[in-house]
Amino acid sequence: MQRIDNFKSIIDKYKVIFFDAFGVLKTYNGLLPGIERTFAYLEAQGKEYYIVTNDASRSPAQLAESYHRGGLNFINADRIVSSGMLTKEYLDLQVRDGIVAYLGTVNSAHYIESQGLHTLPVSEIDDSNIDKVNALVFLDDEGFDWAKDLNKTVNLIRKRTIPVIVANTDRAYPLTKSDVSIAIGGIAAMIESVVGKQFIRFGKPDSQMFMFAYDLVRAHSSITKSDIVMVGDTLNTDILGGNKFGFDTVLVLTGNTLQKDLNTRITATGIIPTYICETAVIEDDGLDLK
Amino acid sequence: MQRIDNFKSIIDKYKVIFFDAFGVLKTYNGLLPGIERTFAYLEAQGKEYYIVTNDASRSPAQLAESYHRGGLNFINADRIVSSGMLTKEYLDLQVRDGIVAYLGTVNSAHYIESQGLHTLPVSEIDDSNIDKVNALVFLDDEGFDWAKDLNKTVNLIRKRTIPVIVANTDRAYPLTKSDVSIAIGGIAAMIESVVGKQFIRFGKPDSQMFMFAYDLVRAHSSITKSDIVMVGDTLNTDILGGNKFGFDTVLVLTGNTLQKDLNTRITATGIIPTYICETAVIEDDGLDLK
Amino acid sequence: MQRIDNFKSIIDKYKVIFFDAFGVLKTYNGLLPGIERTFAYLEAQGKEYYIVTNDASRSPAQLAESYHRGGLNFINADRIVSSGMLTKEYLDLQVRDGIVAYLGTVNSAHYIESQGLHTLPVSEIDDSNIDKVNALVFLDDEGFDWAKDLNKTVNLIRKRTIPVIVANTDRAYPLTKSDVSIAIGGIAAMIESVVGKQFIRFGKPDSQMFMFAYDLVRAHSSITKSDIVMVGDTLNTDILGGNKFGFDTVLVLTGNTLQKDLNTRITATGIIPTYICETAVIEDDGLDLK
Amino acid sequence: MQRIDNFKSIIDKYKVIFFDAFGVLKTYNGLLPGIERTFAYLEAQGKEYYIVTNDASRSPAQLAESYHRGGLNFINADRIVSSGMLTKEYLDLQVRDGIVAYLGTVNSAHYIESQGLHTLPVSEIDDSNIDKVNALVFLDDEGFDWAKDLNKTVNLIRKRTIPVIVANTDRAYPLTKSDVSIAIGGIAAMIESVVGKQFIRFGKPDSQMFMFAYDLVRAHSSITKSDIVMVGDTLNTDILGGNKFGFDTVLVLTGNTLQKDLNTRITATGIIPTYICETAVIEDDGLDLK
Repeated sequence: MQRIDNFKSIIDKYKVIFFDAFGVLKTYNGLLPGIERTFAYLEAQGKEYYIVTNDASRSPAQLAESYHRGGLNFINADRIVSSGMLTKEYLDLQVRDGIVAYLGTVNSAHYIESQGLHTLPVSEIDDSNIDKVNALVFLDDEGFDWAKDLNKTVNLIRKRTIPVIVANTDRAYPLTKSDVSIAIGGIAAMIESVVGKQFIRFGKPDSQMFMFAYDLVRAHSSITKSDIVMVGDTLNTDILGGNKFGFDTVLVLTGNTLQKDLNTRITATGIIPTYICETAVIEDDGLDLK
Repeated sequence: MQRIDNFKSIIDKYKVIFFDAFGVLKTYNGLLPGIERTFAYLEAQGKEYYIVTNDASRSPAQLAESYHRGGLNFINADRIVSSGMLTKEYLDLQVRDGIVAYLGTVNSAHYIESQGLHTLPVSEIDDSNIDKVNALVFLDDEGFDWAKDLNKTVNLIRKRTIPVIVANTDRAYPLTKSDVSIAIGGIAAMIESVVGKQFIRFGKPDSQMFMFAYDLVRAHSSITKSDIVMVGDTLNTDILGGNKFGFDTVLVLTGNTLQKDLNTRITATGIIPTYICETAVIEDDGLDLK
Repeated sequence: MQRIDNFKSIIDKYKVIFFDAFGVLKTYNGLLPGIERTFAYLEAQGKEYYIVTNDASRSPAQLAESYHRGGLNFINADRIVSSGMLTKEYLDLQVRDGIVAYLGTVNSAHYIESQGLHTLPVSEIDDSNIDKVNALVFLDDEGFDWAKDLNKTVNLIRKRTIPVIVANTDRAYPLTKSDVSIAIGGIAAMIESVVGKQFIRFGKPDSQMFMFAYDLVRAHSSITKSDIVMVGDTLNTDILGGNKFGFDTVLVLTGNTLQKDLNTRITATGIIPTYICETAVIEDDGLDLK
Repeated sequence: MQRIDNFKSIIDKYKVIFFDAFGVLKTYNGLLPGIERTFAYLEAQGKEYYIVTNDASRSPAQLAESYHRGGLNFINADRIVSSGMLTKEYLDLQVRDGIVAYLGTVNSAHYIESQGLHTLPVSEIDDSNIDKVNALVFLDDEGFDWAKDLNKTVNLIRKRTIPVIVANTDRAYPLTKSDVSIAIGGIAAMIESVVGKQFIRFGKPDSQMFMFAYDLVRAHSSITKSDIVMVGDTLNTDILGGNKFGFDTVLVLTGNTLQKDLNTRITATGIIPTYICETAVIEDDGLDLK
């Protein structure tokens, strides 16, 4: 049986806390009630924190704004590391010019715009511009016609030998208490198997996400891996990825992993968090914010 | 280097010929010019033949009709074995009552109707009837709204522990000389990976397709496996499946496998046809039909 | 929650019973105490039965002998359908001459010997005979030097474009109450991924196993699929395969599937047996054998 | 058709060069004749360089020594980044005490020894010490009895919920001009599929390898990703991994990728190197070393 730890006592042991977003800070229902107390405590204790999230549907600024709307004013854009940011870095470094075709909303394409590159939805690719397409990005499951544009995407990839980037590896995300939605990572996996090519995937559990965040921390302080703890709700992304990168990890039970399945899942996968907590929300009387 | 054989001389050696449809008898362009000569010769020689096809979009009667429209009058419904027929047999044997939800056209659902079962498109499943759904079938890539109905399908499978049948395992099919279309087998594979369950898949290379056809032949004659040759254009469905079942096989080069890639593909996959022919069309002067 | 049925009452409903061997009739410990009563009852009731087993390590005659030694005298060689028999049929039909190289014991190679073929352990393949090797068979995890002969096997497959047959798809088998052993199917999967070729695999859940047994039954009686029930301990071989072939199925809890994991496993896999029974052993007082 | 570039002119464009070892600097035959000229040139031009290799069989010091023996005196231990070093870092950070069981030679285990940890070959794990085993590492394909110790490994993993680390993800390595050997990464993949758990894998194409090397470079200079080029012979490790991390890449044709397969492999995989060179060896007259 696994020991259940108190989240506040774990925070006290580390200098930097990395948080997954979905299932840890928020659910389909909005922010977790009381999660603002956790961030108030982090601020009061002078702890550093980052949100490390598989999300390419919006820019860090827009993600931060959504936290502010929910009353979590502490979280600013510079605290957010998303798989979308890795996608933008890749385009900056590896695609010199031409068109970046994408699947997703117009909004999701805005912030990956790079100097010299022109983003264009797959629906607007035709014989007149296909030769200028130098990369393809899977950004979001919304904003396009699945039947029409996914077939178009398959044929684009067959005709152009170009890098194909998946900006979020998740296969599904929760929509309501009982329903999920197919995520762009699931759609990309289908296209990958149809065309038989290997795409470039950004997102946890891949180390590159953790490195991006780790680099931000090290830019202004002499932190090492053992000073950092990663908090997540999903064994095979947050916990596997954080652990492999060398961070201690906290599994919280407010998202993908339920208390009743806990032991079964840990034994079945062999993925073992350093700590397990019911929630990342600190209890009301647990605060010392004076 | 592989030897190229003459198709007519192969026919002469066997009592029964099984044909794949797409890439062998027809392409995106319609029937192969001259293919009617092959069937005239088979008839003249008293050879038996069957079409063994991964197709669940139409009934055998409708498939036969499409051959007739193209001038291939020999091929009747009782000569056609489709993955859709295996799906119907499964529903007959294993699903006693209730609703069979499906993805596909209304037409594709017609012929899988079974006594006591009611077919209903996924789009019409809701809280009022979800508890009566006792099976789900992937039939065709057309006839539904991909974004809306695939998400609905994922949640249906998560809520009901029921058999899920994929009536065609192909991941893509040719649309024009240069373009392909995602097939229902590719879509089903995505849903399978999103929900993490194992679906029941009918279609070549699975032995059950060959057995169904073999049983039809044996119903009226004392044929053995070595009397039958399977003709196909695809190494990892027609040739792998036919060979494993114990049939000799002919790879034709009018479909998925191109002459220039032939040796590479055979060496790479380790799938070796008994014979290789340029086409299943018999030359004009090669006929002896008097 | 799943209903637990009485095995005897299920037998009464069918004309033919197919049994998996391991986990159903026997365990690492030998035959299940009392299993002879089940076969006495089957005989008394005039039911037909077959053992359908993923086992290529011995011939049906030798397998029958092992049942006799355990006191189960009813089971003769003609009641046993093994994945090894499918391998032999394949070699008979598809490999005309030359050497069949194998991994396994000398004993396991005996019964796959076919007219015109010469079986030779991989360890005896060298430059002088490699060009005569026309097939390779994975038979058993014993009888060879893993490090030396598996490396030799990889290079044999890279040099010869020949059919490679896996005569048992199981990845592991129970050795004691707590320990398992890697099976030849697991070893073959490793070699398959190292060489990147597709092997021919015989064994449940593949339909060909069930067809082989079904053909034996039909050879002397007018049985249909709905007269047959498949009894097994493993969801993704016995139950998935039997169900897909069109048989009703019984999951017993004396082997791979434990009572405590039952609901989780059925929900997780989506593989649903027609019935669930604690054991295939009929209770002492449940017999009517006069 | 792909353009073939001159390696010396590429070196001139970058500040730091990362080299894969096998297929780039050496083959089964030893060091590539003339490769010392490349390193003489790098030294003369004041370029920085690192060897980034999937090798956990020896320590960096021992790897350097093997270069020295071949006459490549420039390459010292501090220039070598191996997947074994990531394994050691992982053990340092994540395994506090107890036994680290391993598969490999005694030599391969030496350099992963960490404070407070005791390395022990799998062959020496028994009932008396199994409860103290807190990690398992796949290091090398030599140094153990495959049949005995791999079966023992499977059962160790089934009994202990511990991190399992694969210190080299390669599935095979070249042994002679025509033969390969199964690598520890191939063996680990088999065990992974037998036990159904997810192991922690270190090695290219995973980003963590590139990050480790990148961190070494940045420790003493203000280099960015665009100053670095990765040189490798394998599309799906060196090139895919380097490209994804943001480095430009050079594919050389002295190892896994042959000139004749070049276009086919690039089109088939969709993995596109920035440059392609016949070899990393600089021509004799191409040097300016005075």
